[in-house]
Amino acid sequence: MPVLGIDLGGTKLALAVFMETGELVSRKVIALEGRKGTEAGKLITGQIIEFLEDADYGIQSIGISVPGIAYLNTGRVWAPNIPGWDDYPLHEEVKQVSGNIPVNIDSDRACYILGEQWQGNAQNCRDAIYLAVGTGIGAGILVNGTVLRGANDIAGAVGWMALCKPYQTKYIPCGCFEHYASGNGIAKLARENIAADKAYNGILKGMKASNITASDVFDAYEKKDPIAAQVITGAVKFWGMAAANLVSIFNPEKIIFGGGVFGPAVKLLPEIKEEAAKWAQPVSITQVKIESSALNSDAGVYGAGFLAIQALKNPINT
Amino acid sequence: MPVLGIDLGGTKLALAVFMETGELVSRKVIALEGRKGTEAGKLITGQIIEFLEDADYGIQSIGISVPGIAYLNTGRVWAPNIPGWDDYPLHEEVKQVSGNIPVNIDSDRACYILGEQWQGNAQNCRDAIYLAVGTGIGAGILVNGTVLRGANDIAGAVGWMALCKPYQTKYIPCGCFEHYASGNGIAKLARENIAADKAYNGILKGMKASNITASDVFDAYEKKDPIAAQVITGAVKFWGMAAANLVSIFNPEKIIFGGGVFGPAVKLLPEIKEEAAKWAQPVSITQVKIESSALNSDAGVYGAGFLAIQALKNPINT
Repeated sequence: MPVLGIDLGGTKLALAVFMETGELVSRKVIALEGRKGTEAGKLITGQIIEFLEDADYGIQSIGISVPGIAYLNTGRVWAPNIPGWDDYPLHEEVKQVSGNIPVNIDSDRACYILGEQWQGNAQNCRDAIYLAVGTGIGAGILVNGTVLRGANDIAGAVGWMALCKPYQTKYIPCGCFEHYASGNGIAKLARENIAADKAYNGILKGMKASNITASDVFDAYEKKDPIAAQVITGAVKFWGMAAANLVSIFNPEKIIFGGGVFGPAVKLLPEIKEEAAKWAQPVSITQVKIESSALNSDAGVYGAGFLAIQALKNPINT
Repeated sequence: MPVLGIDLGGTKLALAVFMETGELVSRKVIALEGRKGTEAGKLITGQIIEFLEDADYGIQSIGISVPGIAYLNTGRVWAPNIPGWDDYPLHEEVKQVSGNIPVNIDSDRACYILGEQWQGNAQNCRDAIYLAVGTGIGAGILVNGTVLRGANDIAGAVGWMALCKPYQTKYIPCGCFEHYASGNGIAKLARENIAADKAYNGILKGMKASNITASDVFDAYEKKDPIAAQVITGAVKFWGMAAANLVSIFNPEKIIFGGGVFGPAVKLLPEIKEEAAKWAQPVSITQVKIESSALNSDAGVYGAGFLAIQALKNPINT
């Protein structure tokens, strides 16, 4: 029974047709090109109409991953990177074109862990966590087989984790953990450290400060740049502490590191595990596997596909 | 339908008969007097026999709270403060005297939040957390109405939370959060600070160092003792950070502070909330209530009573 998984990102829309077995039958990626508000909504509904009209596919259900928060009760979403989507009636709009076909919508972090549970590294897990390190940081958390939602659908905001006493006002915009270990955080810390170190003459020096990204910092780290080393070594400590806290709190089977920025850090997993082992509950840490994502940038669209499969049995917000 | 709730502590055994409505019909407390291993087990089974034989009660179900970890699959328990109870077959022993009456056993931290859910401050909550500050620190966590167990029943070990970079070897025995903010931690820090401060001449100075307890430190704090102030002010910061992390991760309706040591700290809840508000996910923190326990030292026995009620419908380890 074919289903449509849709992964809305900050810059692009990915769509994929899956069979219930997990087989990916067809995929398509469209750049958002700055679409905002109802334009972004129309891009999605337009694509849904196209996919549904194609009888070859025979789509029976739809799942959508959104980069932010999905409110189950209202079907509305908050997506901070899409202007005009602070309280967007996505479910209502999609239902206008989907007819009798069920539609489930959830947050990207929920979809990441669902994708891994369905076809990735969390298969057969009932207690597993996807720690998504992208521009920001969030976690998709599986508790006894079900995604942790919290009282108002905003559980998993682990980027706000307090890991470093005392409090500093620089944590206000994004939280302590994100400040030190998200894509934005890594780039910003590197820029600040370069500005503060007059004697620095490394690789990043030649770049226009405002252009430096986390990816540049990882590249410079590979080339033994001292400022990049300082920032990335710091991030490793924070990733380890955060993983430790999730281990002590949840006693999970797996913690999966992934997200748009984490890629080059996969080779640092041994150091992250070593740091986590220092801090975590000593029995739980022996019971958890800390791994990288199996699906990488496809985790969201696979998770959306799995949402669609679930919608066939249990439509969460229709 | 009357049930028996049994709360095994490190120094005493509390038993109470409850009606299904939550009415406490009868209660009894017995000092452990150093009983260990099978002697502690016999105290429990002996009491169960007495209660079951009393036809006036008409006990229909039994719940037991243990100070440690209860393994659902095996019915065995780990209770570090009772010698010989590192893998104790409590369920098997109790079943030998309880006959057809169902018996559910769970950890004290699970029972605390169940007690509050049943008759205390978490009534009508589906997502609530009991942060138990006693000799050590643990949390009973309710997720969508059910206690969070993790893959191997040891979820909620929040005393191991990493809150203060960099790692120090003094966190090895108990974890970072416990080191600074548990009963043991508070007493130990005060003793260390007194030993380190030759000029100190406050209230705690006259006490034999090894006798100083967390309760003494709270008393001295009330009397403006500078070392007590330093230790308790530090603990408040850590309690606030830990509460913030639980808010960001779980998006709960309530966080309830309680436990054997926390009593005198109830008046510090405004400061704890203030600290939590700095760190936590800014929307989630507006949605949570941070309160003190309604049941105080009875949370465990009420939780055990509620375990017994649940056992009538769903015996978790019979």
